[in-house]
Amino acid sequence: MSATLGTVKPFTVLVEGNIGSGKTSLLKHFAVFDDVNVLIEPVKQWRDVNGHNLLQLMYNDSERWGLMFQSYGQLTMMQNHLGTSNRPIKLMERSIFSNHYCFAENFRQSGKMSMPEFEVLSQWFLFLTTSPLLDFKVDLIIYLRTRPEIAMGRLLDRARGEETNVSLSYLQELHCLHDDWLIENRFPLPAPVVIIDADRDMEGMMSEYTKYESIILNRPMI
Amino acid sequence: MSATLGTVKPFTVLVEGNIGSGKTSLLKHFAVFDDVNVLIEPVKQWRDVNGHNLLQLMYNDSERWGLMFQSYGQLTMMQNHLGTSNRPIKLMERSIFSNHYCFAENFRQSGKMSMPEFEVLSQWFLFLTTSPLLDFKVDLIIYLRTRPEIAMGRLLDRARGEETNVSLSYLQELHCLHDDWLIENRFPLPAPVVIIDADRDMEGMMSEYTKYESIILNRPMI
Repeated sequence: MSATLGTVKPFTVLVEGNIGSGKTSLLKHFAVFDDVNVLIEPVKQWRDVNGHNLLQLMYNDSERWGLMFQSYGQLTMMQNHLGTSNRPIKLMERSIFSNHYCFAENFRQSGKMSMPEFEVLSQWFLFLTTSPLLDFKVDLIIYLRTRPEIAMGRLLDRARGEETNVSLSYLQELHCLHDDWLIENRFPLPAPVVIIDADRDMEGMMSEYTKYESIILNRPMI
Repeated sequence: MSATLGTVKPFTVLVEGNIGSGKTSLLKHFAVFDDVNVLIEPVKQWRDVNGHNLLQLMYNDSERWGLMFQSYGQLTMMQNHLGTSNRPIKLMERSIFSNHYCFAENFRQSGKMSMPEFEVLSQWFLFLTTSPLLDFKVDLIIYLRTRPEIAMGRLLDRARGEETNVSLSYLQELHCLHDDWLIENRFPLPAPVVIIDADRDMEGMMSEYTKYESIILNRPMI
């Protein structure tokens, strides 16, 4: 852990993965530890910006509202990255990195976002993540890797409002982008990656979480 | 001047005013002083973001491209605010403040920007300008106050590309917003304001600049 200006930076773990990869259940598993601060994806903020549901607008018409949604995603993710707490471990659900390398990149590749808009987002991303004034320190990435078909099954089971617009092909695109970033290293990695096979059922996943506990909690292996 | 981490923050002056208020000629007047670092409005950047002219897109269809343009304006203005130099005085043409209080606010008032988009811009503005990590210190604001009719005459004379779409009514709206901010204090002021009557001809303006030299250059009055 590094120390700056009297505050200790927490050991920061990003929990990355497709929609329906089991991020929430992993975070719940680790939220019970006293030294862990869990920051869930700021979906609640995206749903209510002074009464406006940006997530719904984006799912309804991504070409029109994609930049607005992604820009607000950058802001709220940045706030999670920069926020302080007195707990030594921070687990973040997704990050400003997946916001850009997976979701904004998907907008670009699918042609749902115009190139000038993508350029503006990219320049913001570059400025924020490379500024010496802002600390985006990450120590570890957990990649919950799931087959898109399995993720789709979980989505259908839980039926979250805006997700009814999510198609299998969209999950496949996002899966490839997560692989591109976290396995193929086609975009810069801010920290080492641990890949967890997240195709298993709940019981199997629990045993995986336990297996990786010492790494995630930055404790010596026994 | 305050000092942080070994660097001296320059005495920072914002030069604010409508399109056609004479900001460029004031900046040229002060650029000859050795201790002055002049940062012009980043219009050149807005015209060429990897080959895309955001300024032209915005003037062509502000409802569609307003957020993109304003978001990039925020970024480039922030870079001017945060940039360092070894000169003790910094003169900035416009600012992240007029970007928001005059130009974004005009989009909102005229209905050219949707409310969710304006909210996203506003939250970015609030985060950036209040973050303890970022220093937007301003020491003085020079307001070049011009009647919109005179500004319009200057625009017609100089015929800059994208400005051919600028109407007198738009200049009147911007004039009111500058007054709202810098005279009526309807938005927070980051520094004291000096109002210069910028309706005069070139010779008259030069004598005004000379009159305010010691204030702008932060020198003792003789």
